[in-house]
Formats: sequence, structure tokens, C-alpha cells
Amino acid sequence: MSAILRCLAASLALACAPALAAAPAKGRTMQQVLDASTPADWRVPAPEDTLYLDLAAGRVVIELAPAYAPLHAANIRTMVHEHYFDGLAILRVQDNFVTQWGDPNADDKDKVRAFGKASKKLAPEFERDIRKELPFTRLPDGDVYAPEVGFSNGMPAARDPKSGKTWLAHCYGMVGAGRDNDVDSGSGAELYVVIGEAPRQLDRNIAVVGRVVQGMELLASLPRGSGALGFYEKPEQRVAIKSVRLAADVPEAERMPLQLLRTDTATFAALVESRRNRSDDWYKVPAGKIGLCGVPLPVRAGPAKKTGS
Amino acid sequence: MSAILRCLAASLALACAPALAAAPAKGRTMQQVLDASTPADWRVPAPEDTLYLDLAAGRVVIELAPAYAPLHAANIRTMVHEHYFDGLAILRVQDNFVTQWGDPNADDKDKVRAFGKASKKLAPEFERDIRKELPFTRLPDGDVYAPEVGFSNGMPAARDPKSGKTWLAHCYGMVGAGRDNDVDSGSGAELYVVIGEAPRQLDRNIAVVGRVVQGMELLASLPRGSGALGFYEKPEQRVAIKSVRLAADVPEAERMPLQLLRTDTATFAALVESRRNRSDDWYKVPAGKIGLCGVPLPVRAGPAKKTGS
Repeated sequence: MSAILRCLAASLALACAPALAAAPAKGRTMQQVLDASTPADWRVPAPEDTLYLDLAAGRVVIELAPAYAPLHAANIRTMVHEHYFDGLAILRVQDNFVTQWGDPNADDKDKVRAFGKASKKLAPEFERDIRKELPFTRLPDGDVYAPEVGFSNGMPAARDPKSGKTWLAHCYGMVGAGRDNDVDSGSGAELYVVIGEAPRQLDRNIAVVGRVVQGMELLASLPRGSGALGFYEKPEQRVAIKSVRLAADVPEAERMPLQLLRTDTATFAALVESRRNRSDDWYKVPAGKIGLCGVPLPVRAGPAKKTGS
Repeated sequence: MSAILRCLAASLALACAPALAAAPAKGRTMQQVLDASTPADWRVPAPEDTLYLDLAAGRVVIELAPAYAPLHAANIRTMVHEHYFDGLAILRVQDNFVTQWGDPNADDKDKVRAFGKASKKLAPEFERDIRKELPFTRLPDGDVYAPEVGFSNGMPAARDPKSGKTWLAHCYGMVGAGRDNDVDSGSGAELYVVIGEAPRQLDRNIAVVGRVVQGMELLASLPRGSGALGFYEKPEQRVAIKSVRLAADVPEAERMPLQLLRTDTATFAALVESRRNRSDDWYKVPAGKIGLCGVPLPVRAGPAKKTGS
């Protein structure tokens, strides 16, 4: 479960308890909305779209977005099957921007990791045509960067009815595929995650391939790199990637039993409202609005699967 | 100097160099705007408004905003003079929200640190009347949360001409004074800094007292607390504060020679435009707009002062 950002107590957490108890008179808190949710409000990410990125510090879980970046999702699956990422490293952590990982020897033709059956270049998947297969629950609060914003399959998205295009938005925790200047130079071999204020200028310029749904704190709390663009200057500063696995390739009993709140339900609408206008006593002036990247996308542990079931 | 967020190269930083060289045809990059700046585009923060927060890992420099929170700024100065913060600690790091520091024993009447001449409670300074003493350079790009946004004395601000009020905005790096439920329960003894997506719902609900102008990465890269609201659960997890000093109380030769880009100049307007519509070859679709908290506020090292000058 995502932590509930309820109050900024002047002292310790317990000081907040009375406010939560006093809340119902004005409206529901996010926790109350979640407590009243039903199983149908939650979804289990598809195992073939779920990555386990294992670091010494713990596991990061990423949900891929094949509806928006099918070529990248497929290429990443191929690389994962080939154990491409195992033993690679986090190369770059730029404060208030991104954490990025890939092959430290990408530019060394003698040491570069082989791509095997994976493609080194992919057609750009920066935006998609608006269509029924790409659901869109609109957030009516407005946005600085796009004519319309909302949520699609649990991810923050934007669209422009005039151009007929839609794209995933660079909010905190979103994962993209690094590229060079050529639009087709990305492959998914080098991935980054947003760790600061949403860099929405990247939208429509790069393929967003998914979202970190668990373990974000492991990627956001790394030491920042002192080199240009936040690259680590010394090889020993890099953070090793133990392995990246697809949940579908892991025995069912070993999969993380995560559930994600659906974003196309009345419960989600209530959750957004609970954050747009906070109901606990700490808040004196309700915001009245909420930005796309300010909407939490809750994750919870579901029941663990039984072995052999 | 703030790092230039110029490109997301698929490999190492050097891969970006050609793009910078090719840029001028389309417009100026932020670096080019900064390179063309004159001394008048920069300001030196007032020593009596500049805090040095020293951790084992390094120094964090905070510029206070007495124009918006005069009582809090004065109270913080009093506490600093009394060495109130020395030996206290960072108590809370909540991912994508805030890092917060203060007295670990605030709730223990036997161990709580004495306030001396400082006030334990202050009148709320959540917003101010719009007036000439509070300059405002408007950002015309719009905002989800406020009717108008822009910059005031180098800090992101918002205002509502209807209510006649203005306030500082909770962008990345902004510092506020924690409080309990009562609006006058803050004092500056417990401070927090934004380390994630701008929590603009806090605007007008709490006193923003300044901005981190250097060392933000030290506060943003700390391990997240595993307790409720990101509080560290074990005392040994807390990060000790060696000392907090006012630059005015430090010998001139030992002060950090920082300069901040003014936000009321043609150079700043050009900088905003360089970020609204990136001119380097990496970007294929210019954003066309920029959010308030997406505008960088550059800091550079000025000439060091001579001893006794």
C-alpha cells in the first residue's frame, strides 16, 4: 500500500491520529475510500507485463505498458529472457530528474553486452492514435502541458483530440527507454525512471514503457552521480543489478501478489476527490484541484498464491 | 551551477555533445542563456537570510524568505543563534514527499530541547497580501492549482487577484515549517523540504520559509523511513545535524560565495523560454509550455571573498 500522505505533524506520526478520526464530517479520506473498496476495484498486473528488478537493497517491480509501447515491451521481454540485464548496473542518478540503468560498456565494442535476438533499435513509440483499446478516464482538473489528461490502464496519460494522439505522461515513477538523438535509437536496453518533479517536456519525445509499482524508494534514494547529467564517475559507484526477471517466468508461488487500484472506477474517482479536497482537520484550505502527477496510484499486497494452484 | 538537464542519452554523457553544438539554429539552450548573462542578472543572497545546515555528508544551503514569512524567519534566526538545531536530526524521509528535521525528543517533556528566546508558536504565515514589496514575475503558462503563478525574489509563487493574496508554492526544494493541526502551532523548529512531485495541496496551509539553493541532493537521497509518514523507526536511522549557522554569523571569508539567478530579468525570461521550447536536437516535439515547478532556478559559485575585505 502506498503510504498515506496525510499530515505534516510538527512532531511524530502519532500526533496525526486525532485528525483522521475527525475526518468523516467533511468527506472521505483516501484511506476511507480504500477501506470501502471492493475486490473489483483492484486488478492484478499481467505476469508477462511485470518485471522484477532485483538490487542488493531489494526488489523493484515494474509494470510494462504494452498498449502504448508494444515494440519496446516485446524487446524488453526478449532481453529479460536472455538475462541481458543481469549484472548490468545503475549508471546515472540525476537529482530531481531520473535514475537510469543499462550496460556500462555500451560504448565499448569489445565489452558491450550482446543483444541476442533483441533489436538494438526500435521504431519510435512516443505517442499512439486515440482509440477504444486505449481506455482513458479523464481528470477534469486541467494541465499545463496537454489539452487533456487522465488515466489509461492505471497509468497517467495525456491526449490531444485535435491531433488524435495519446501518450503516457512522465510522472514520478514512470519508466522510459533512453535513446540517442535519432528517434529510432532506443531499444529498452537503457531504462530510466522519474525521481523528481515530473519532466513533462519528455512527453512525446521518448517511449514511456511502464511504471514502477513497488520499490520506487530504492531507485529514488540512491546517491546522485557527480558527473555530467548525474552519471557516476567511478565504476565502483554504480549500483549492480542482480537480475531482471519477468513474473511470468517465475514459479507462480514466488510471484509478488500485488494488486493495483483500477483507474476506471467510481472508487478511483472518489480517491481522486479525497486528494483534491482533503477532509482531515490538518488542511485549512482545500486545493480544489489536483495535478495529473499528484494523483496517487495505490498498490496493495493481494493474497499469496498457493504452490501448484 | 545547477546541472543542465539536456538529454537522455542512450549511453554516456558525451553522446550529448553534438546536440549542444547544433542547437543555435533553433534557439538558445539554457547554458547559452546563462553564458550570455551579465553580473546584474545574478544576486547574492543576504547573509542574514542564508542558513548553512551541516550534515556529515556535506552542507545544505537554504535561503530564507522573510518577505513571505517574517515571523518564521526571525524565529529561525533566534533558534540558530541559540544553536537550537545543533545535534538534532533528520527524523523523516517520505518518498516522493518530504525530508523533515527537528527535535527527536519534541514530545518528551524531560528531554525536549529548550526554545530559549524563540517562540514555540507563531501566527500563521500561509499567505500574504499582494503588494509592491512582494515582486511577482508572472509565468504565463498556466497552473492547475492557482489563478496566477510566477516568481518572487527568486522563489516560485502563486497569487489570486480575487482574494488579493499571494503565497510561495511547494515546488521541489522549497522549505516549510511543520505544524500540528492548529494553524499557530508551527515555529520553524521542525522544517521540511519537498523531495518529490510538488505537493501543491500544502500551499496556503503551512508557512513556506525558504528554499534549498545548494545541497538538495543530500536531503533527497536519504533512505526513506519505514514508519508511518516516512518517520525513521529506530533512533540510529536518524541523520544527525552537526550544526545550523546563519551566514551572517560566519566570518565573511568562510561564507559560501553563491550567486542566484534573478527572476525579474530578460535573462530569466530567456531561460524560461529555453526550457519551454528546448532547442537541442534531442527534442523532437517542443513542450510549448512549462510548469511553475519545472523552471530551474540556477545557482553558481561567485568569486570568493577575501579575508578582512
